[in-house]
Amino acid sequence: MFETAELGRKVSKSDFNAQVLELRTELLEVQQALRKANVPAIFLFGGVDAAGKSETINLLNEWMDPRWIITCAYGPPSEEEQERPEGWRYWRDLPPKGQIGLFMSAWYSQAVLERVHGAIDEAQFDKLLEHIAIFEQELADEGTLIVKFWLHLGYKAQKKRFKELEADPLTSWRVSQSDWDNLEKYEDFVATAERAIARTSTGSAPWQIVEGLDLRYCGLTVAKAIRDALRTHLAEVQVKKQLAAEMKSRETQVAVAEKGNGADDSAVGVLRSASGLTILSGLDMKQSLNKRAYNAKLAELQAELHELHLKAIEAKVSGICVFEGWDAGGKGGAIRRMTAALDARNYRVIPIAAPTDEELAQHYLWRFWRHISRAGRMTFFDRSWYGRVLVERVEGFAGEPEWRRAYAEINDFEEQLASHGIVLSKFWLHITPDEQLARFKSREETPYKRWKLTEEDWRNREKWEHYEQAVNDMVERTSTNHAPWTLVEGNDKRFARVRVLQTVCDRLKAALHH
Amino acid sequence: MFETAELGRKVSKSDFNAQVLELRTELLEVQQALRKANVPAIFLFGGVDAAGKSETINLLNEWMDPRWIITCAYGPPSEEEQERPEGWRYWRDLPPKGQIGLFMSAWYSQAVLERVHGAIDEAQFDKLLEHIAIFEQELADEGTLIVKFWLHLGYKAQKKRFKELEADPLTSWRVSQSDWDNLEKYEDFVATAERAIARTSTGSAPWQIVEGLDLRYCGLTVAKAIRDALRTHLAEVQVKKQLAAEMKSRETQVAVAEKGNGADDSAVGVLRSASGLTILSGLDMKQSLNKRAYNAKLAELQAELHELHLKAIEAKVSGICVFEGWDAGGKGGAIRRMTAALDARNYRVIPIAAPTDEELAQHYLWRFWRHISRAGRMTFFDRSWYGRVLVERVEGFAGEPEWRRAYAEINDFEEQLASHGIVLSKFWLHITPDEQLARFKSREETPYKRWKLTEEDWRNREKWEHYEQAVNDMVERTSTNHAPWTLVEGNDKRFARVRVLQTVCDRLKAALHH
Repeated sequence: MFETAELGRKVSKSDFNAQVLELRTELLEVQQALRKANVPAIFLFGGVDAAGKSETINLLNEWMDPRWIITCAYGPPSEEEQERPEGWRYWRDLPPKGQIGLFMSAWYSQAVLERVHGAIDEAQFDKLLEHIAIFEQELADEGTLIVKFWLHLGYKAQKKRFKELEADPLTSWRVSQSDWDNLEKYEDFVATAERAIARTSTGSAPWQIVEGLDLRYCGLTVAKAIRDALRTHLAEVQVKKQLAAEMKSRETQVAVAEKGNGADDSAVGVLRSASGLTILSGLDMKQSLNKRAYNAKLAELQAELHELHLKAIEAKVSGICVFEGWDAGGKGGAIRRMTAALDARNYRVIPIAAPTDEELAQHYLWRFWRHISRAGRMTFFDRSWYGRVLVERVEGFAGEPEWRRAYAEINDFEEQLASHGIVLSKFWLHITPDEQLARFKSREETPYKRWKLTEEDWRNREKWEHYEQAVNDMVERTSTNHAPWTLVEGNDKRFARVRVLQTVCDRLKAALHH
Repeated sequence: MFETAELGRKVSKSDFNAQVLELRTELLEVQQALRKANVPAIFLFGGVDAAGKSETINLLNEWMDPRWIITCAYGPPSEEEQERPEGWRYWRDLPPKGQIGLFMSAWYSQAVLERVHGAIDEAQFDKLLEHIAIFEQELADEGTLIVKFWLHLGYKAQKKRFKELEADPLTSWRVSQSDWDNLEKYEDFVATAERAIARTSTGSAPWQIVEGLDLRYCGLTVAKAIRDALRTHLAEVQVKKQLAAEMKSRETQVAVAEKGNGADDSAVGVLRSASGLTILSGLDMKQSLNKRAYNAKLAELQAELHELHLKAIEAKVSGICVFEGWDAGGKGGAIRRMTAALDARNYRVIPIAAPTDEELAQHYLWRFWRHISRAGRMTFFDRSWYGRVLVERVEGFAGEPEWRRAYAEINDFEEQLASHGIVLSKFWLHITPDEQLARFKSREETPYKRWKLTEEDWRNREKWEHYEQAVNDMVERTSTNHAPWTLVEGNDKRFARVRVLQTVCDRLKAALHH
């Protein structure tokens, strides 16, 4: 794989200077175009030590407008980073729309080094690579341009570079004993890199191998590749926008035509099953709990939850509870019955409403990653990332390709949380349409509840069937072993609250005792 | 001071229950009103250990809508927190507009404990208290409601509470050996608290002492105080808004009238000195550097900066460089000459443009606090917090009381950075109006520079004199020993770049060698 990167290619100083001026102008132009197109770009730099990663990144910062570039390099994770899944620190650093992120090794570093040093076997390594590929695909799907550069040096060239760096007092700090140790493992390292590149060089996030022997050649090659990749990507973005606009106008025509025929479901992507039955149809909505039994059970479960959360703090096991459900389904009440049993310094309730503009400038999962807590805390999401496949799907805020791929994205996200040891519980608080109507009316009549009811609640109610279908599909596709859905029969609030508390206690208990 | 909080006041269970329902309704109402009024509120809880801080905070979370409450408690600072000034973690947690922050001890904790344990003397303690008072005043000035509760227990009552907590397996974890040790210092602790309360109980951030003997009494008292404080504050906000609207309409009338008289300066708050001279008038704008001298000096200084930044990483000394100046004054070029000498993983360039909506929902300094880096990094602000006293003043985006108090706020902010060991350098890149015109024209003519020039640049140019006065006042009031301004004669770009590099090198050197 690397043969073509050991040819000894060079660029003379005068050649270099002759090309730089125009190249810089073009880079600045394309950078401006990127800002206008409002999509982000990520350029990742991996490679052999001392092959010119930092020199190249410095050059790019000098040639382009550094105000719209975010440069990220990673050392060993800080204490706060260690307490969260590895992905957290990368998500935190993603460039917003219109900006460029230059990433040094980043999410490849740990996997490759662990494999070289034998900390993980090949199967584990492949699994990490698969996760990386999924992550990059997710970003690409939302419009991010991703190009990855592997800066290469042959064994002899690397040794020579180390010696040169060591000889210069300005750069000797860059060569440490561990670099020399790594050099001994050159063959292993290159073989591992080859596997990583082969498995993660995808159409939407390709690797490009660049010879690092001559820094001028390397810098020019990377800069030109970036210019070209940006140009191509921006042209594609343009075409896709036009296509989308065209599709939309056609869809509207179709929808109007079908409406005439009495069939308006296709527009919101509902695939009704023949029977009209969904997973929600099977729930026994008559279940209830009398006040006395409720009070006793509530006290017992709250005491249990209290004890469990103390143990969880000690064991550094975090809990995340996701609440979805019909409007007036009782999410807030259920959350309050949990938090009452907890120490206020140890939990956060995250209400998910419309995204802020900083959130809109990122991948839709970014706004949830930012709320992943330090170890041992509990986080309650009052609505969540499932908005993508519920309200955004039904209301058409997300296009069909977007919400369809969201199931896999969400599963991958939750798997990352779970494999970090976070205990995930997900609840759909279910009520019948009649019960909802009764609650809406009671809200209208009770002065201190009136603010809870909005016009939107009435509008959502009209799309009950569409939501029901969306819930069905969501549970079908995202109820996994490590993050199962609990459908809560919620017509009786007491029954629902106890069910939620019991479930969270059971899940915490299982995680703490296994 | 605490005599009135050792009277043994209690509320019976039936009394409590009789009051709760109405109180909860009122709290929810006032919470909604706060959201509408779009101002934040902070309630801070200090007090003797085990006097009911966490119980009270839990109660408030249960009674109010926890979706609009942020609860913050602090343990020992994490590694990332230690690498930044202490204020960073509190700024990070401030509630945005419309929300309530419940803070447990927070910024009082460290000062009080250090004093009790003799780590600081009384003068140092007073200084910390003064900083706290300034911080709270700043928040209050921007409309934040702040009320602080001191939950009190007498010595005997505290001892009894510890024993009760220890006896119950559900709460025994809350009493540690250090709590018993602290009890031995009860007298010292109370005396120190008394001093803290006396010095920081201001009109805009008052302390209220609450007897903690009976948790029902304590909870009710705090909740009622919160309800009343919010009501009063919201009424005041309302009145102030009306007053401001009235003032504005009058000002417009006055401005229109004065414009008729040919005097339109008063509207932008310009206090022209009799001579028309400003600090900028004295600069020798003819200074320049020929290309040869420049190249030699540049290489030398970049090498020096490179070495210094390596030392700074090791010494964990961060550098912050602030760039202000006329449009086309050469800020970007100067920054690039610095970053070219640095390792890309060790610096960030922060361009300050219009605030995002998350930033708009906070105190104006919040958006700068969030960019304070970990230890040993360099941060370049391309425009900065000085916007408040420059563009916001001149364009009237900030009212006169706002930009006038900003000088003190900024000085306090920078003092916090400096006393954490951060090296601050501030540059005003000065050019003459003729030079600016020449640069604007060249930007218009050069294709790859055209994007840099906007309509706004031309508009700003018309207010040259107003800006000049604002710069004069800014330098006069914020050029301090630990954060001096450097006025850079920038008509010759080479001269300016060398001047900036030299200054940063000198400041870093001084910090690293002293």
